[in-house]
Amino acid sequence: MAATTIKASFPLLMFQTLFENDNGHIRLLQKFDERSKILENLQNYRLLEYKSKPHTIFLPQQTDADFILVVLSGKAILTVLEPNDRNSFNLERGDTIKLPAGSQNQQSILSEFNKNILEASFNTGYEEIEKVLLEEHDKETQHRRSLRDKRDHSQEEDVIVKLSRGQIEELSKNEKSSSKKSVSSESEPFNLRSRNPVYSNKFGRFFEITPEKNPQLQDLNVFVNSVEIKEGSLLLPHYNSRAIVIVTVNDENRDFELVGQRNENQQGQRKEDDEEEEQGEEEINKQVKNYKAKLSREDVFVIPAGHPVAIKASSNLDLLGFGINAKNNQRNFLAGGEDNVIGQIHQPVKELVFPGSVQEIDRLLENQKQSHFANAQPEHRERGIHETRDPLYSILDAF
Amino acid sequence: MAATTIKASFPLLMFQTLFENDNGHIRLLQKFDERSKILENLQNYRLLEYKSKPHTIFLPQQTDADFILVVLSGKAILTVLEPNDRNSFNLERGDTIKLPAGSQNQQSILSEFNKNILEASFNTGYEEIEKVLLEEHDKETQHRRSLRDKRDHSQEEDVIVKLSRGQIEELSKNEKSSSKKSVSSESEPFNLRSRNPVYSNKFGRFFEITPEKNPQLQDLNVFVNSVEIKEGSLLLPHYNSRAIVIVTVNDENRDFELVGQRNENQQGQRKEDDEEEEQGEEEINKQVKNYKAKLSREDVFVIPAGHPVAIKASSNLDLLGFGINAKNNQRNFLAGGEDNVIGQIHQPVKELVFPGSVQEIDRLLENQKQSHFANAQPEHRERGIHETRDPLYSILDAF
Amino acid sequence: MAATTIKASFPLLMFQTLFENDNGHIRLLQKFDERSKILENLQNYRLLEYKSKPHTIFLPQQTDADFILVVLSGKAILTVLEPNDRNSFNLERGDTIKLPAGSQNQQSILSEFNKNILEASFNTGYEEIEKVLLEEHDKETQHRRSLRDKRDHSQEEDVIVKLSRGQIEELSKNEKSSSKKSVSSESEPFNLRSRNPVYSNKFGRFFEITPEKNPQLQDLNVFVNSVEIKEGSLLLPHYNSRAIVIVTVNDENRDFELVGQRNENQQGQRKEDDEEEEQGEEEINKQVKNYKAKLSREDVFVIPAGHPVAIKASSNLDLLGFGINAKNNQRNFLAGGEDNVIGQIHQPVKELVFPGSVQEIDRLLENQKQSHFANAQPEHRERGIHETRDPLYSILDAF
Repeated sequence: MAATTIKASFPLLMFQTLFENDNGHIRLLQKFDERSKILENLQNYRLLEYKSKPHTIFLPQQTDADFILVVLSGKAILTVLEPNDRNSFNLERGDTIKLPAGSQNQQSILSEFNKNILEASFNTGYEEIEKVLLEEHDKETQHRRSLRDKRDHSQEEDVIVKLSRGQIEELSKNEKSSSKKSVSSESEPFNLRSRNPVYSNKFGRFFEITPEKNPQLQDLNVFVNSVEIKEGSLLLPHYNSRAIVIVTVNDENRDFELVGQRNENQQGQRKEDDEEEEQGEEEINKQVKNYKAKLSREDVFVIPAGHPVAIKASSNLDLLGFGINAKNNQRNFLAGGEDNVIGQIHQPVKELVFPGSVQEIDRLLENQKQSHFANAQPEHRERGIHETRDPLYSILDAF
Repeated sequence: MAATTIKASFPLLMFQTLFENDNGHIRLLQKFDERSKILENLQNYRLLEYKSKPHTIFLPQQTDADFILVVLSGKAILTVLEPNDRNSFNLERGDTIKLPAGSQNQQSILSEFNKNILEASFNTGYEEIEKVLLEEHDKETQHRRSLRDKRDHSQEEDVIVKLSRGQIEELSKNEKSSSKKSVSSESEPFNLRSRNPVYSNKFGRFFEITPEKNPQLQDLNVFVNSVEIKEGSLLLPHYNSRAIVIVTVNDENRDFELVGQRNENQQGQRKEDDEEEEQGEEEINKQVKNYKAKLSREDVFVIPAGHPVAIKASSNLDLLGFGINAKNNQRNFLAGGEDNVIGQIHQPVKELVFPGSVQEIDRLLENQKQSHFANAQPEHRERGIHETRDPLYSILDAF
Repeated sequence: MAATTIKASFPLLMFQTLFENDNGHIRLLQKFDERSKILENLQNYRLLEYKSKPHTIFLPQQTDADFILVVLSGKAILTVLEPNDRNSFNLERGDTIKLPAGSQNQQSILSEFNKNILEASFNTGYEEIEKVLLEEHDKETQHRRSLRDKRDHSQEEDVIVKLSRGQIEELSKNEKSSSKKSVSSESEPFNLRSRNPVYSNKFGRFFEITPEKNPQLQDLNVFVNSVEIKEGSLLLPHYNSRAIVIVTVNDENRDFELVGQRNENQQGQRKEDDEEEEQGEEEINKQVKNYKAKLSREDVFVIPAGHPVAIKASSNLDLLGFGINAKNNQRNFLAGGEDNVIGQIHQPVKELVFPGSVQEIDRLLENQKQSHFANAQPEHRERGIHETRDPLYSILDAF
């Protein structure tokens, strides 16, 4: 059984490169509502990936939206400027912080004012202002000019720049480390793993910071979670009662590579490879329901609210999720010992909902001793032939 | 005088049957914004009617929106499932509860997962899972199959099912009664009549639970009210400062029948019957302003914010209202002793607003000794010929 | 240098007269989103100007939106009606109050109800109701009838009416003065200048009441500010991190004249007068960036969030601003001693952002000893020829 049709209810999204040089890149995920009608609720949200080599800096850029920044791998110093204050934080994997809208590239802003206003503002002659604040900054950019000339204006600026050892030492002074901080600060970073996992066993761990736990996430009404699934394990079938979840694959070995591109047209191609193609159209239509999507690294996918999903890891898997409309969300599992809504159904109702008797249903539910995460192979019976080429993970959902 | 033209500002809405069998039905009101441009603010709200015979159960259905459930007549046991908990409540007339989004039909969800994932999730062979949890549940549905075959997929499921006496007794164990509960609980039902009426006299009673009084109504920013008008009485002219109110007629004798259908085209037909038709077009245009809508049982109507309205009951009348945008709403009466905004106008301004002198205005206002509800016939003078066929109630509004 | 092209990012808006008679007028600013795509966020906001002669009254009108009322000049008595209460306030310049939606013109509402309902509501014969409450109120309107006949229905009502000395004395009884009241009351007026200015020096003063300071502004998430810039002074370059600011010119000498109209087509005309026109197209395109808009009195303009701006006053200038999306807004200055985000940049980053060395940048920044407001002419050097015709103020912005 290997149904593979990708359903519209489970959209994959593509990245566009905003900036790229030898030091790194910035990529922006396509608009969610461009991809699918059912993602209209996400029209005010975008996903950005920042990736850079060690000993580089992202210079201040214009941001007109609030950010939730999560460090997927590596270490960084983050500096947040305020009118009368500056805070620097020493960030590491899992550190998360909300950055308010309103950052600007000061040099590019100033260069647009006219002579008179700049002279009065800085109480200085224009020649000095031009020399010190405005002239294009050529020290480090000469070698990239030919590349940049081919791009549009917004990419001509220096965005990711190398730092000298002295500059790094200077920047490292006085920074605060997030790891010692409480999860409930209004402005300091918190780590996704600073609290105990909400679900944990030998098959996986599920960390989650919700708006109820952290004031930074309240205004945006977003949760952030980090899910580790061990090779050969399964995150059991469940659905979120309210939250729409944007999930990215965090593969540490690939050095901060969050997500990737996916060919929209592969749906048709895959069908041709489908061994069950010959079973005729009716069978295929049924397949659409019982599909699993084999995703590769670099994918971003969205799980709509109320949409049941299970995730099977073919190798150790590390996922990052942003949950939109997170307040009062409940994660309802459909199998396993705890948090299983089927187990909560009244006895007389159980046999009205399901074909089996109450006794049969209860006995069946007790077979799975694990909760939340379990072995991806049933333990009680002979295994079939193992598939030879495994994807990193499979998502198994329903609708 | 019997003007009858229905104005666009006072929209009536129609129901669509979602499910129906011998045990009951579920009906959904058409989208508010489909009916009228001025109801655009209600585009995220829908009205559902659940009606069923005694000793039946509504099986769990998918709900992707928050619910405010009000019992119009009869008694029921409501069970709310949570991942690690189950609460049952003994509901009766007037009991109200907010149900969060995210309920699901577990059987229908599970049937969409594939073999492998189900086997791993339940740690059991697929044959057993299929037999106990998945196979179509035919015990009670056989006799309805021919009916269901004519309908679309969503109506093929069992939705309203008969319960045996034993099942009902089992369900009745451990349920909580809402009647003893405080109105301010965050998750338990409250009764619309659990507080004193906000307005009350021998002509009627007006009960209302606002977001300020009950935390369950705060997120949705909705009030719920229950208005009883005695036969021959009048809810005095008033308007809501902020709230848009969706009103349904609650007729107990008709056993949980909330609302009904109304032919959109009757407007034209009625005009033909109109005795004042012959007065010429100019008179008719004036009629449009001074109209009254004779509504019958089963109507749902919407009162826009700021829209003045009076309701006259030709027989005892029981209305249920949902007020959208309820926070800080004020109900401003235009006649009667209390809550009368005309009485609050400064003396010197009164004669600038109205043609009479201050003395004439004050003397006129004092004639109505009642507040909020009054006799629908003026008490001081000879009555005209009583209309022979009275509708259940008339709505009298202005614009 | 006299670039004059008006940029789309800095929209000017036009007024439409809603009502006008010898006593005053009411004007409504065109819809913000009609004027420019970037003002879509303001689609639920409108700006109204009320202007009247002494000893007149604005009669109650229908309002279906919340109001933030600010007195620009003169004195007034404001009466707020509630169902069981009436509050009058003695208002003067700078007094501000939020008025909730739901006011109505009671006479016009009543006149739409039919005979039967009015007779029952007021428990009186229709003839008396008609005479005292409904007949068109002709005492003061006779001389304006010919004018009104040319207008549409909504302008036929009396809106601004003269008061006798006796009526004014009657109205003045029991009013409360806002000047003694705290800034934090939920329903009473507060004065924009009741707190110390947030910025102040010999060149100007900046008063601001934010949602954090006043509960009346919290629901609407709006700040209100009052900015005085002395002749020949400059509000230093800055931007708002989150707020979109709607700015009107408050010119006291012109007796409550808030704002005005502006010919959309003057952009083209101005180009013809532009002395730099002959420098060729490339130069003009550059001009678009380094422009300044010379605005006259009666202008309303909008500063988008994140948009840098500086304001130069050619004569004493008094501005009123409404900031939409005000919560957590930061005003970031780009020059001056305090609140200067450039000064907060880490030393090693400064020379990556700007062309000068750290020493050059710091020396340059120290030239401006003032904060927020400064002399509009640099103090260190010879002045050029002064422009002969100065506009009231210039706005200098960037993008």
